[in-house]
Amino acid sequence: MSGKEQQQQKGAANAGAAKTAITPTREENYAEWYQQVVRSADLAENSPVRGCMVIKPWGYAMWENVQRVLDGMFKATGHKNAYFPLFIPLSFLEKEAAHVDGFAKECAVVTHHRLKVGPNGKLIPDGELDEPLIVRPTSETIIGATFAKWVQSYRDLPLLINQWANVVRWEMRTRLFLRTTEFLWQEGHTAHATETEAVDETMQMLRVYADFAENWMAMPVIQGRKTESERFPGAVETYCIEAMMQDRKALQAGTSHFLGQNFAKASEIQFLDADGQQKFAWTTSWGVSTRLIGALIMTHSDDDGLMVPPRLAPTHIVILPVLHKPESAQQVLEYCKALAAELRTQQFAGRGIEVEIDARDLRGGDKMWQWVKKGVPVRIEVGPRDIEQGAVFMARRDRSAKDKASMPRDEFVRGASALLQEIQDGMLARAMAFRAEHTRRIDTREEFEAFFTPKRAGDDNSPSEIHGGFALAHFCGDAAVETDVKGRLGVTVRCIPLDGADEAGTCVITGRPSPRRVIWGKSY
Amino acid sequence: MSGKEQQQQKGAANAGAAKTAITPTREENYAEWYQQVVRSADLAENSPVRGCMVIKPWGYAMWENVQRVLDGMFKATGHKNAYFPLFIPLSFLEKEAAHVDGFAKECAVVTHHRLKVGPNGKLIPDGELDEPLIVRPTSETIIGATFAKWVQSYRDLPLLINQWANVVRWEMRTRLFLRTTEFLWQEGHTAHATETEAVDETMQMLRVYADFAENWMAMPVIQGRKTESERFPGAVETYCIEAMMQDRKALQAGTSHFLGQNFAKASEIQFLDADGQQKFAWTTSWGVSTRLIGALIMTHSDDDGLMVPPRLAPTHIVILPVLHKPESAQQVLEYCKALAAELRTQQFAGRGIEVEIDARDLRGGDKMWQWVKKGVPVRIEVGPRDIEQGAVFMARRDRSAKDKASMPRDEFVRGASALLQEIQDGMLARAMAFRAEHTRRIDTREEFEAFFTPKRAGDDNSPSEIHGGFALAHFCGDAAVETDVKGRLGVTVRCIPLDGADEAGTCVITGRPSPRRVIWGKSY
Repeated sequence: MSGKEQQQQKGAANAGAAKTAITPTREENYAEWYQQVVRSADLAENSPVRGCMVIKPWGYAMWENVQRVLDGMFKATGHKNAYFPLFIPLSFLEKEAAHVDGFAKECAVVTHHRLKVGPNGKLIPDGELDEPLIVRPTSETIIGATFAKWVQSYRDLPLLINQWANVVRWEMRTRLFLRTTEFLWQEGHTAHATETEAVDETMQMLRVYADFAENWMAMPVIQGRKTESERFPGAVETYCIEAMMQDRKALQAGTSHFLGQNFAKASEIQFLDADGQQKFAWTTSWGVSTRLIGALIMTHSDDDGLMVPPRLAPTHIVILPVLHKPESAQQVLEYCKALAAELRTQQFAGRGIEVEIDARDLRGGDKMWQWVKKGVPVRIEVGPRDIEQGAVFMARRDRSAKDKASMPRDEFVRGASALLQEIQDGMLARAMAFRAEHTRRIDTREEFEAFFTPKRAGDDNSPSEIHGGFALAHFCGDAAVETDVKGRLGVTVRCIPLDGADEAGTCVITGRPSPRRVIWGKSY
Repeated sequence: MSGKEQQQQKGAANAGAAKTAITPTREENYAEWYQQVVRSADLAENSPVRGCMVIKPWGYAMWENVQRVLDGMFKATGHKNAYFPLFIPLSFLEKEAAHVDGFAKECAVVTHHRLKVGPNGKLIPDGELDEPLIVRPTSETIIGATFAKWVQSYRDLPLLINQWANVVRWEMRTRLFLRTTEFLWQEGHTAHATETEAVDETMQMLRVYADFAENWMAMPVIQGRKTESERFPGAVETYCIEAMMQDRKALQAGTSHFLGQNFAKASEIQFLDADGQQKFAWTTSWGVSTRLIGALIMTHSDDDGLMVPPRLAPTHIVILPVLHKPESAQQVLEYCKALAAELRTQQFAGRGIEVEIDARDLRGGDKMWQWVKKGVPVRIEVGPRDIEQGAVFMARRDRSAKDKASMPRDEFVRGASALLQEIQDGMLARAMAFRAEHTRRIDTREEFEAFFTPKRAGDDNSPSEIHGGFALAHFCGDAAVETDVKGRLGVTVRCIPLDGADEAGTCVITGRPSPRRVIWGKSY
């Protein structure tokens, strides 16, 4: 379906519909729609500190769920958490040449350790440090220096460590969750006795990320390898999961790096092997960040606001008691409390169903729309008549806000967990269908350029007008070609997909031989 | 019991005992004993960055348990987590005069946002910031600025927020967990419509901390109010929990501040009240940090190393299979796995019992002592003979390492949860007895000075020789007297205990009138 057709179809579906809860819509201005979804769901906001965000309770609760689930997956694969310093001495950063080149232009530098009153009566920095400290942009160098102390013998390996932390990269253009100067993340760092083990670890953690993205975020991802130009500074190979957003751009949602012996040599992580030889370890690192929340928002939300996949929702079910008749208010509230208590005893995705009763004194419509915009999977309204009938009035966030149905209370309780999983599955299916619809095998340069050329010049914020999506096309592997395509079309090789078949062909740009197709796309 | 008597008694009890696992002992050199306990239990180590520590997996797992339990307590009292920027603009810090005075001398200052190659070929800071940024030493000012946006009406109050974060205070003399330049903590920040509500919140969170210390850490604490000289910079009142360490010094383990309207005025947190008046909010803040791990170590550990209270232990029970006979090794391992699986189904303190099987190829004695030094509450040895008898060989960390007993396997499994609680209770009882033993009501200046004068000059690291402990004595309230006593004896008012009775008396130092006794002590 072309962008035009899609727009028409959407127009038809919306015929007679009230205006959307989010203005502008995705069609009208995708970038601004994203900001408004974040704002309307009360997820985060810009802080008074340039490029740093405040993560508000609803957004942070989603991140806590991400942490809880991933942390369990890391522990199940044998990793332990630890914590390393926020600061990295400048000399450490310099130990790996490619690494420092990659981060030198965007790091916060601590140069003083106190303040004093300056000549004009204002406070100024004082106590200059002998060596400046960098606020960690990533921790390979400081963790490497520590691993060098911990690893002496092959018996100390593998060393499987993860850290939950904040990091800082001085970004010039920031967007809530997607690109911020400070962000929260986890960074896994492991050391191994052999290359094979380190490669296996790299691939294992990529699979963990893909599993999490698909089964918890309901976000389909392509697992792939990066080309040289997109590799992590200092890595031998960078693997990634790439997801398609609703503007058809690619978002890199997680990376897993095979670092070879580069950082082991820079940090002198050596061990005495079983054969009596002194050897350098093989290391990996892998991470995901609060960017995942941005990916989740852009994968699932619609023109009524956020839609949270049930398995990561801070609240699964919100109960809205109808309290405007004073004579029945108390009875309604009691009914709701009993309903909530019963629902909370049900298990969903490894925890009790989370239920909130919103008894605030607000107009029913306003209240309902607040929860729509927050993306809570299921809403229940309970009024005096529902109690008489032993019923509840139920609405699903994955359907139109007007699509509500009365159902027997007990049937709802019994089926609540299955309903949440059904919503989860539907969200994944919808996202997969969207990606399939906007992924095309392309074999000619003309089609490739047309695919990525905006249909209407200057309308760069309307997704249906921007470009086709993901192109599966052959690539000769020449970095200069990537640079050229990026410059002309704003398109890069997102990854070389791992599940792609070897298939000899010719590069869609140069006509030179290519061993397999890669994923091309515009990216965040 | 005097220090001398205690030393003699200990000597008698140890007669014929092998040497301790930790050298030196508490008696010999308390400060060095602490370092060795931390090292032997593999909890943390100094990092290459001045004053910053690396928290190793065993230490971090204890902190994760602290976080999990406290986070549940905060949520149960209505608080939500959020996240605020790491950096604070210098001008924000200056908004509250007492506050900036308190932190200006110990803060990390970010002045540049990139690096460039300098004249000598080395990297140097580049891209100077218009306004320096402070790495947060605490977040009242940046959170206050955000609260000012969030709070408009009395309907927005109370605002009950908590943040788990890292903070930096540039300490000149650091000690693992107890005082480090960077540390991990939580900081609660709340805003209220009335003074009463804010005071109630301050006291509620103090009680939460005391509850956690006593019922989870097995560490008795005194809840009290700080004198002016020990107040948080910018607070109206600071409340604290104070614990006695085994060298009889006080450790401030948590603080809860009533901030009045000081920060609300500095940050302009104003709201339209129900009466139509524009008013400043009343705020609080409260925090505990990784210092708690230091407190836990110094409260419970002995000369064989760490002793972890079961309710916070990362591993409750370690199973040590006796595997040196090849013909029985497989059978022993299977028996251990089945035992572990069964134990894990038992609940203790809100989670399944955590069991580890240590099947490493190490000498049994070495292996056993590693777990003693890590402080795991219960150790189980299983050999071929135990299997024949359907038995296990059990040792408790709160008893001598040599005190092991065979018991029926099923009886052990059935009683495991009760055993862990018995160990927990015993640890609290022992710590309470220790504190009672070293707390004295003192009414004369002579006794006061003798109580705090080291028995043997120059032997400042041996606890039995240092000083008496906590003195419950009258104080006139004059800050100059505190300064004098601190200078001469190194003793300060730790707190004015909340549960102390009003009891008119005369100041033990000046003889002036005093309304009640306070806790005097040396402190960390």
